[in-house]
Amino acid sequence: MSGTVLAPQATIGVLGGGQLGRMLALAAARLGFKCHIFAPSPDSPAFDVVHRVSCADYNDTEALDRFAADVDVVTYEFENVPAETATFLAARVPVLPDPQILATTQDRLAEKLFVRQLDIPTALFAAVAQPAELTAAIERIGLPAVLKTRRYGYDGKGQATIKNDTDLQDAWREVGGQPCILEAFVPFEREVSVVAARGQDGAVECFDVTENEHREHILKTSRVPAALSQFAVHEARRIAEAIAQKFAYVGVLAVEMFVLPGGGEILVNEIAPRVHNSGHWTLDGASVSQFEQHIRAVAGWPLAKPIRRGRVEMINLLGSEVEDLQRWLTVPGAAVHVYGKAAIRPGRKMGHVTRVFADE
Amino acid sequence: MSGTVLAPQATIGVLGGGQLGRMLALAAARLGFKCHIFAPSPDSPAFDVVHRVSCADYNDTEALDRFAADVDVVTYEFENVPAETATFLAARVPVLPDPQILATTQDRLAEKLFVRQLDIPTALFAAVAQPAELTAAIERIGLPAVLKTRRYGYDGKGQATIKNDTDLQDAWREVGGQPCILEAFVPFEREVSVVAARGQDGAVECFDVTENEHREHILKTSRVPAALSQFAVHEARRIAEAIAQKFAYVGVLAVEMFVLPGGGEILVNEIAPRVHNSGHWTLDGASVSQFEQHIRAVAGWPLAKPIRRGRVEMINLLGSEVEDLQRWLTVPGAAVHVYGKAAIRPGRKMGHVTRVFADE
Repeated sequence: MSGTVLAPQATIGVLGGGQLGRMLALAAARLGFKCHIFAPSPDSPAFDVVHRVSCADYNDTEALDRFAADVDVVTYEFENVPAETATFLAARVPVLPDPQILATTQDRLAEKLFVRQLDIPTALFAAVAQPAELTAAIERIGLPAVLKTRRYGYDGKGQATIKNDTDLQDAWREVGGQPCILEAFVPFEREVSVVAARGQDGAVECFDVTENEHREHILKTSRVPAALSQFAVHEARRIAEAIAQKFAYVGVLAVEMFVLPGGGEILVNEIAPRVHNSGHWTLDGASVSQFEQHIRAVAGWPLAKPIRRGRVEMINLLGSEVEDLQRWLTVPGAAVHVYGKAAIRPGRKMGHVTRVFADE
Repeated sequence: MSGTVLAPQATIGVLGGGQLGRMLALAAARLGFKCHIFAPSPDSPAFDVVHRVSCADYNDTEALDRFAADVDVVTYEFENVPAETATFLAARVPVLPDPQILATTQDRLAEKLFVRQLDIPTALFAAVAQPAELTAAIERIGLPAVLKTRRYGYDGKGQATIKNDTDLQDAWREVGGQPCILEAFVPFEREVSVVAARGQDGAVECFDVTENEHREHILKTSRVPAALSQFAVHEARRIAEAIAQKFAYVGVLAVEMFVLPGGGEILVNEIAPRVHNSGHWTLDGASVSQFEQHIRAVAGWPLAKPIRRGRVEMINLLGSEVEDLQRWLTVPGAAVHVYGKAAIRPGRKMGHVTRVFADE
């Protein structure tokens, strides 16, 4: 894959049509590229910002063939694109990041094993393929613990917390009776993430460590810089860089981490092989955005060195909060982003606001 | 027209498909709006960043009817859209800024008379409807002077400088034998511009005064802040605001001005009733861009108060200079914009680079 260098005017194919695909397409447009969005839903917000779209299922091989013939490189905006789709396309056109990485990060067990192999700490975990294995796993991990489906989990979906009084059959039903991992509950002090880009030349550029606050498992606020010691900042960046290098990653990834009480020890929680909500602040708060870094990487262009513009806060507009956007429009230094989604649903990511405090 | 307040998801129609239309569409997308671009050329770079386009002539009333039916408001990205097109549309859907302003600014004579009526100084000028009037005009204005077509001039096209030894018939032929004005040559110290936005509520927000350097009549570099006295800065902003208010303008306009030797006196050179090349620095160098301000205004949303992020320089990539863009990609703090134009022609605006020096 290395060596793909796109000329401006080239077409970047994006699998997935949500707000991440939309913001990738906007970043690609700034650099002179065209985008072609492939997504199953006719309501995909990314469709509105590109001229060419394929509205088809991810297993529609005829549509995928036409898509592959039209684009110069393929990337994706979310990690639950079927790995088979990415593999099918990779036989026809460069796909970045490599579909193998998609396969690893789609499976919590494979992902955890990958991280451990780099000597990077994670929560204790055990595979639970069937209900009968749950008791033994609890004995190893202890309680409380979190049962998570190995695949297709996001924003807290496919998770059940297990305490001493939890009925194990209920928990198993709650996650849908699929292959799982059991993870020790981590009494973290803070949640942070590092959004890192790796270019085709192997150079890595990390954005500053971001501190994240979730509400009902959905990201609500990101703040940067995170309130961490210099040591912890260094460690968080080292971890993200090691993961990007080990994957020989091309593009942007996000590593979500827990900081343990005391502030020194960091565990990896999850890897997202894509641009990430906790990097949205970079659109206004840095000299280059995560979206542009991703486009530069998949285009074979050099990465930029991000310069942060001050203290930054990013607030997600969830569900009907988007109706408040008028009040944000006049807040000095606030930038409002609306994703153009037709239907408002509780907890749905409808937009975000960035506040840049330049003097801090 | 006042009172049009668009909801996110509304569709903004844009007449013109060049880089200005493209950047307007990108700004509209950030705020959740859809755009529909109407332009005659199938190669229009703005087509690539929107899902709905009308590729038709400006006098194709059937296409204009369909366009009007699809959009919630119409605006334009360049001032040479036929005023009749804007008027035709205005009978069907709100058109902002008002088509009457388009008519005034399309005619150098009407524009100059409008400015003079506000007691704002311009170069001396005289109407020259036919060659026989040229000698009398020269007697009034003096030499050197510049003969300019009243209509359809931009980037130095439709202009001829007249000196003592100029053959007047040659000059008249050079401008195409159309109705003209003769303007006194202004021995200016610097060229500056003010990009101002006026909202439907009548509020005006000016971006900082920008100093512009042209090369063969085409903008090459903008620098902000302009090296002007506080008095001149105040005067330049006052002029732009007075023009915006007198027009009851809605959207972004740019006023190009000459600063006379000594730095105190300012003459208005030209009004552009649209976003302007000398405001491109705002995309990276300010908390809100000229494009977003324009979209906010035509959408009936409140304007933002622009905060500049430091000293800023904008460099146009003209013609084959776009081939140098790789070297700009790694300059710290530089942001590269490429317009996605297929053909490189000498002097054609292919992209631009912004450099933000945050500590200055």
